[in-house]
Amino acid sequence: MYLNKQNAQNELSLLLPNFADKSFLLAISGGADSMVLANLFLALNLNFQIAHINYKLRGEESDLDEKIVFKFCLKNNVKFHLYKVSEIDKKPENSVQLWARNLRYEYFNKIKSEENLHFIVTAHHLNDELETFIINLSRASGLKGLSGIPKNENEILRPLLKFSKEEIYKFAKENNIEFREDTSNQKSDYLRNFIRNEITPQLLKTNESFLENFSKSLTYLNDSKDFISTEIENKRKNLSQKINSKIIFNKEKLDKESDFVKFELLKTYGFDDANEISKIFKSENSSLFYSKGHQLQIARNELIIEKINLEKEDFKEILLPEISQIYLKYFLLSDNFNNEIWKIDLEKIKLPLKIREVKRDDLLFPIGMIGKKKVSKVIKELKLSTFDEEKIKILSDSKDQVLGILPYRQDSRFVANENLKNFIEIIF
Amino acid sequence: MYLNKQNAQNELSLLLPNFADKSFLLAISGGADSMVLANLFLALNLNFQIAHINYKLRGEESDLDEKIVFKFCLKNNVKFHLYKVSEIDKKPENSVQLWARNLRYEYFNKIKSEENLHFIVTAHHLNDELETFIINLSRASGLKGLSGIPKNENEILRPLLKFSKEEIYKFAKENNIEFREDTSNQKSDYLRNFIRNEITPQLLKTNESFLENFSKSLTYLNDSKDFISTEIENKRKNLSQKINSKIIFNKEKLDKESDFVKFELLKTYGFDDANEISKIFKSENSSLFYSKGHQLQIARNELIIEKINLEKEDFKEILLPEISQIYLKYFLLSDNFNNEIWKIDLEKIKLPLKIREVKRDDLLFPIGMIGKKKVSKVIKELKLSTFDEEKIKILSDSKDQVLGILPYRQDSRFVANENLKNFIEIIF
Repeated sequence: MYLNKQNAQNELSLLLPNFADKSFLLAISGGADSMVLANLFLALNLNFQIAHINYKLRGEESDLDEKIVFKFCLKNNVKFHLYKVSEIDKKPENSVQLWARNLRYEYFNKIKSEENLHFIVTAHHLNDELETFIINLSRASGLKGLSGIPKNENEILRPLLKFSKEEIYKFAKENNIEFREDTSNQKSDYLRNFIRNEITPQLLKTNESFLENFSKSLTYLNDSKDFISTEIENKRKNLSQKINSKIIFNKEKLDKESDFVKFELLKTYGFDDANEISKIFKSENSSLFYSKGHQLQIARNELIIEKINLEKEDFKEILLPEISQIYLKYFLLSDNFNNEIWKIDLEKIKLPLKIREVKRDDLLFPIGMIGKKKVSKVIKELKLSTFDEEKIKILSDSKDQVLGILPYRQDSRFVANENLKNFIEIIF
Repeated sequence: MYLNKQNAQNELSLLLPNFADKSFLLAISGGADSMVLANLFLALNLNFQIAHINYKLRGEESDLDEKIVFKFCLKNNVKFHLYKVSEIDKKPENSVQLWARNLRYEYFNKIKSEENLHFIVTAHHLNDELETFIINLSRASGLKGLSGIPKNENEILRPLLKFSKEEIYKFAKENNIEFREDTSNQKSDYLRNFIRNEITPQLLKTNESFLENFSKSLTYLNDSKDFISTEIENKRKNLSQKINSKIIFNKEKLDKESDFVKFELLKTYGFDDANEISKIFKSENSSLFYSKGHQLQIARNELIIEKINLEKEDFKEILLPEISQIYLKYFLLSDNFNNEIWKIDLEKIKLPLKIREVKRDDLLFPIGMIGKKKVSKVIKELKLSTFDEEKIKILSDSKDQVLGILPYRQDSRFVANENLKNFIEIIF
């Protein structure tokens, strides 16, 4: 789309019909796109302030970026907020990009709230959309990842998404807007830069109107996404009811829906693997499934779903219902476990089972070994990353006997032998 | 996906559960992908024949392609069908690609029907999917264009769509399958070759599993597309009824649906422009809209839709209902007409109006000119392409007086003056 004041205003009013009454915090790097954004907000007489982050990633260059933004604010009497990254701020070597993004949004949100502003505004444009689209394509995304950057979400507005980088540069030139070339704080984002330099230029050659057509495609995909989510929510209303903190689906009715509908409905509760979902519908009456944040119990013709809290701070223990099959596939697990089953002898333990944190003097009798070992030692020997190690939980009975280290090691004392009929299955 | 006999068989059985009982015509060019396809069908002991087209586009090379296919058939006792393009066959210079495709499918369908075979099978693979995806992206496509080449449609099967070109070459090598490099009849397809050589290799660099992930995205998009089309058809059932050849929508109910739903429902009848559709709902009671194949009449709380036949062979005339606003935007028009209105004085003509072919001695009194002119001469002066010229129709009254050349010139005699109250509006 052709970028001028009128078109920018139209886009803004589509996002926010009453934009003239609102106040904004503009995230300005000093590059062409953000300086054009600032000038447009000025031309539209809007109520805005500006925030800039000096990441100190490119020495003197970074300071010159800061200066050009400061100069604009001074000249136009716009309130200027600056965050200067200090030596103390940790810059992790392998994920500067992620670090910078978190820093950015934390800072912007802080200023927005301190200054009582309504919206954060960023200068993302159509070329950014294309890069994001290709990144998501390379990562197996569904409609959600392929329908574009949100134009208006979480009080962040992106009014330039319909305009190409070319249009923005043209506007800057025509209006004598000062900006700094390559203020990118994304120097470290290898993938995005690769796409920008090696793929976008080639795509633009395939068709004179490539970006415009791409933008239309995105709009259409976005409409499709919205339609699907409306229809899925209608189905949720028809197929389930809320009782206190529980959501209860009619199993028979839900099973008549397509795999797609089941997936879309259940992924809300963390059940987002097509194979696992098909197990839910094939499993015995009174099985129990765990996702990372929810418990799903099958009882007669119902699926009863309830939230569970696994956050380190809040987690104490989960008492497991007295049910013969318990699916823990999603629970605290990496993807490496598949169809492993622990059979537990009900005559040797006391119900109910519980899932709890590791205790200091927990002991395990490992399978294939005589005698016992400290659980903390067994865990050390697993040689996990800190991340995976922190997710480990203990399965115990009500007398607090350790039945296993979830999901890695079962205790040999409580393994049910082949012919036993009185057992519980823990399924990964 | 890893290509071996088992995985190929699985893919085939997903497309066609009873594939072992069916018979197939394989379209074989002699290249790696199609020769792998032929060898897989052989290894799976399926009932198949082979068809090859020698386009004679690359001289001796084309003959060598033919030979390698013939040799395979001879050795393995497979029935071989050959179409040799002769000097007489027209090869249009600017659209060899389209010509070759039409020729191909016409010939394959002919053989399939003569030999009583069930399916045509082609060797399209995952890299072809990617090329098609990018082509459609460059052309403003919706979910339909971006959800992949149909795996099974119109009795054409494409069982290799999940496998990459790399997998196919690896399989050919491991199984000592003879093939010809670059048998492509797509030499002339500039865009596809550009994508293959300049864009695909760069995309593959973004992620080791790019193609696999891309394939998952396509599956997900395709599921989304299927969900939408199921839900839209449910809505069609709820919002409309069929009475004889007419489809009648409840206007009020339909108007409550989102723009997306209206668009999806009405595009089936050729009303596929969002702006035009919004006009339908804003227009006066008893307006009439024409798409390229349908008539839509607004009557009280109903939209009454009926098919009209505009094919040259069948077209005689359309009698227009006696309605004060008639929208012809879609009718026989290029996109250049927008919001043009012909006001016609009802006191000077005799209803009903009709749309008919040009007659030899039709005369027009052009606006801004004194006197009359032969319609055929006016048309010549418009300097249209043959294509556009053939679509021209005449608007006349029941006495066969020419009211205008649709959509280009109105006749001056019947123009309603500003203050007249008794008129019809023809709106483009």
